[in-house]
Parts: sequence; C-alpha cells; structure tokens
Amino acid sequence: MKVLLIYAHPQPRSLNGTLKDFAVQHLHNAGHEVQVSDLYAMRWKAGFDADDSSAPPVGEFWRSTLDSKQAFEQGTQSADIVAEQEKLLWADTVIFQFPLWWFSMPAIMKGWIDRVYANGFAYGVGEQSDRHWGDRYGEGTLAGKRAMLVVTTGGWEEHYAPRGINGPINDILFPIQHGMLFYPGFEVLPPLVFYRTEKTDEQRFVQQCRELGQRLDTLASTAPIPFRRQNYGDYLIPSLTLRPELSPGQSGFAVHQHDA
Amino acid sequence: MKVLLIYAHPQPRSLNGTLKDFAVQHLHNAGHEVQVSDLYAMRWKAGFDADDSSAPPVGEFWRSTLDSKQAFEQGTQSADIVAEQEKLLWADTVIFQFPLWWFSMPAIMKGWIDRVYANGFAYGVGEQSDRHWGDRYGEGTLAGKRAMLVVTTGGWEEHYAPRGINGPINDILFPIQHGMLFYPGFEVLPPLVFYRTEKTDEQRFVQQCRELGQRLDTLASTAPIPFRRQNYGDYLIPSLTLRPELSPGQSGFAVHQHDA
Repeated sequence: MKVLLIYAHPQPRSLNGTLKDFAVQHLHNAGHEVQVSDLYAMRWKAGFDADDSSAPPVGEFWRSTLDSKQAFEQGTQSADIVAEQEKLLWADTVIFQFPLWWFSMPAIMKGWIDRVYANGFAYGVGEQSDRHWGDRYGEGTLAGKRAMLVVTTGGWEEHYAPRGINGPINDILFPIQHGMLFYPGFEVLPPLVFYRTEKTDEQRFVQQCRELGQRLDTLASTAPIPFRRQNYGDYLIPSLTLRPELSPGQSGFAVHQHDA
Repeated sequence: MKVLLIYAHPQPRSLNGTLKDFAVQHLHNAGHEVQVSDLYAMRWKAGFDADDSSAPPVGEFWRSTLDSKQAFEQGTQSADIVAEQEKLLWADTVIFQFPLWWFSMPAIMKGWIDRVYANGFAYGVGEQSDRHWGDRYGEGTLAGKRAMLVVTTGGWEEHYAPRGINGPINDILFPIQHGMLFYPGFEVLPPLVFYRTEKTDEQRFVQQCRELGQRLDTLASTAPIPFRRQNYGDYLIPSLTLRPELSPGQSGFAVHQHDA
C-alpha cells in the first residue's frame, strides 16, 4: 500500500510523536510505502487567504470559492498546497493523527483541510442535475481511497460514551469523518481513539502500540463506516434530505449510516 | 454591555466583513462598548506550541497541559494570549463570527481557542471531588457571560435540516457551542446562521442586517440553549454519564439539553 500520514503535534517526544514513529516503522516493516506530512515540522500555514494563489482575484476582491477554483484550474495554487494534493492522489490510504483539542483537530490540521481542499479538487466536483448533486459524499476526487483517524484525548472514555457529557465520540468526530473525509470520496474506517492519555505508562504504551499495529495491519480489510452515499437513491434531490421511508421518524447524524 | 467580537475572515469586503462592520456600528449606536479581535488582520498565530510560553518546559520536554498551566499561573504566557484572555474577562457578551468551512470554524479561529483557552483559565478550573468534577459545563472562569455564534455557510438550509445530508446544524455546531463555549462557563445563545451566502444580493443583505440587528438588540434577553450543567445532579460522577432516569433510553447530543 501507499500510506500518507497527516500528523499534527508540536512535540516529537509526545505520546503522539512516539505513536507516529511507531506507525511509520510498522508500515515500513510490512513493506508499505509511507509519506508523512508532519504539519508542525513543516511549519504549515494554517490561514486560508488570498496569498494561496499567485494569480490576482477573479473579481474585485478575493472570494474563497471562486479564487480557489481559478487557482486549482489554472495552476496558480501555492506550491505547498499542490504538494499535499499530489500526496493525496499518490496515496491509497490516508491516516490523520492528532490530539483531540477542544473536541476537534488542532488548528494547524484544520488549516491543512481549509487550504488543500480546493474548489475543483475536494468540492465543486462533478455535474449537478436533478439526479446527481455533484461528486461528493461517497464520490469525488478521493473515491477508492481509505482514510482513518488516530486520535488521542485526555478525557475518559465514559465521558465520550453514548450518554457521556462530552457527547458520543462518533458524533464528535462526525464533522471530520463525514464532512471532511467521506465528502471528497474517502471510505472512512472506524477511528482508533486512545483515551485519558496523560495516564499513559509503559504498560499502556505497549498496549497502545499493539492496538495501533493491529489497525495498521488491517487497513485494507477493515470494513468502513457505512455512510450513505448521496447520489444512489437514499436522498431527495435537491433538498438532500433522507427519504422519509429510511430511518423513519429519526434524525441526527446516525441516520446517515446504513442500518446495521 | 461590553461586547467582544471574535472575527475570522481574510477579506474585509466579503459578506462576513460587511456583516462584522454592520454589527460593530449597530452595537456602538446602541451605546455598547465593543472590542473586535479580527484574527486575520491581527495575523493571529494559529499553532499552539512551546513558543506560547517564555518559560522552559516543566519537564524534560513541552507538554501541552502541564506547560500551559505553568505559563498561566506564573505569568509567562505570550502577550497575544494574555491580551485575548483580558478581553474575555472584560466582556459580558462574546460573539464569534465566521464562515463555516468544512463543518467547523476556520483554522485561525480554532487556533485562538487552542491557545487562549489555557489550563487554569478555560479548563483545569475548580476542585475535583466525588460531587464536583471541576468548574466546567456551566461553571468556570467565563460563567455569567453570554456567547453567540454568527455563521455563514454556502450550503442550503435544507442540507442542514434534521434529516439533511450535512447533519443538523445544531449538531454540527455542538462541539463548538457545548464543547468550546458552555465548557468554560458561557451561557450560549442560539446561533444566527446565514445559508447559501453566495446567492446574497442587495435585498438579502438588507434582510441579513435586519436579522443580525435584531439578535444584537436582544443579546441580554434571549434565552440561552438549555444545556444541562455538570455538577447539579443530572450526571453521575465520575463517569459523567447522564442519569438513567433523564431522557431515558436516548443518547446523542440532544440529551445534554433540558427537555423542553
């Protein structure tokens, strides 16, 4: 396999850094090709803005979607953005590894999404008609590739349980897994989450590496989260609401997965 | 009132920039004091890291929670972080205005949360016992203050409906409203969301300003989202799961609000 690891932690000797090193070594040992985007080490620019294209604005002033599209189509995107898009196209599997800060990814990784996910690349792809609302949510540039989150959190697992005060971990991660990964076409594998990481001792670290190794060994065979695809009959178009006969009377994130 | 507006858009002439200017003028006209943190204009540093304190690490290497706590307590935080904390303490109402990029806030605003929300300031506050799990989720440094999101999105309102493909807007915003605002003590007002903003013409803009003005005129009187407070009997401690007799058999984000 060709595995791209997008990684965000400022401290190489942190638990995250150590797990990242373990993952890279483990994948190499198994014969896979690996590229790493170590966002802090790369001093990744987080703020999406007019400097992300060398061309002048299409209109009177910079507009995010319009100018992103022009830059993508005409080849005037910043070199750092192009390099990440090329890594995505190269990879067949992409791992996003980060500490959960305030119930989301660190800013620097959000800035990777904001900037690399250009109009024409990650959105604005495919035709829009009364039967097909663009290539997204199960189709798109990254279709056929797999993605998985590897997340650490200081909080207790129970606090992220179905009735835990933080909200269920799968719902907390939905804007990422469904909105940032499934949207441009990825098949999304269940996340690997390590809880209460400040209590990590030698024994727990060994166990964490074992779990991570098992997930890395099964990247190609693990069943993805069964998110519903947009253009295959489950949604009304153009309202893109779930057909009334599917998960009838229910709402919320869970209805966007096929029933078990 | 003393209103702090945290604002993230790179283009002053954008819809967001224009709405921000309208809000500041409207609040001034009504006699309120206003401070604005225009994050792009301030070139806000998004990446939380060891450079955020002038002190050497507590341990062998930088650890986010440990060193954030030391920096906050010993006064070695970066000046830009201290300035934002002082604005928060000054304000009685805080508005976060941003375009919804990939189902969350722009990276630069996430970096404001990651860095300003220090250990001892926004978390790690209050005693932990078998009856009180720290001052958070309804208590904390920012208790008594109100917060509100003003959000623009290119997507259609129906796509964010209870059964819309993006997920319900209130669930999309839960990690922010509950996890970033209610957590350190804010009372959180219902968000103001403008949909399909690329179709904004003069008439819609006038209507948007009218809606925004009405929300600004009622900041002090609007009922907050009735999130359940952590330490007032609704949750078991230390599992912090909702007591079985409350919203029985239900799970997900919605159970963390009082029943209507």
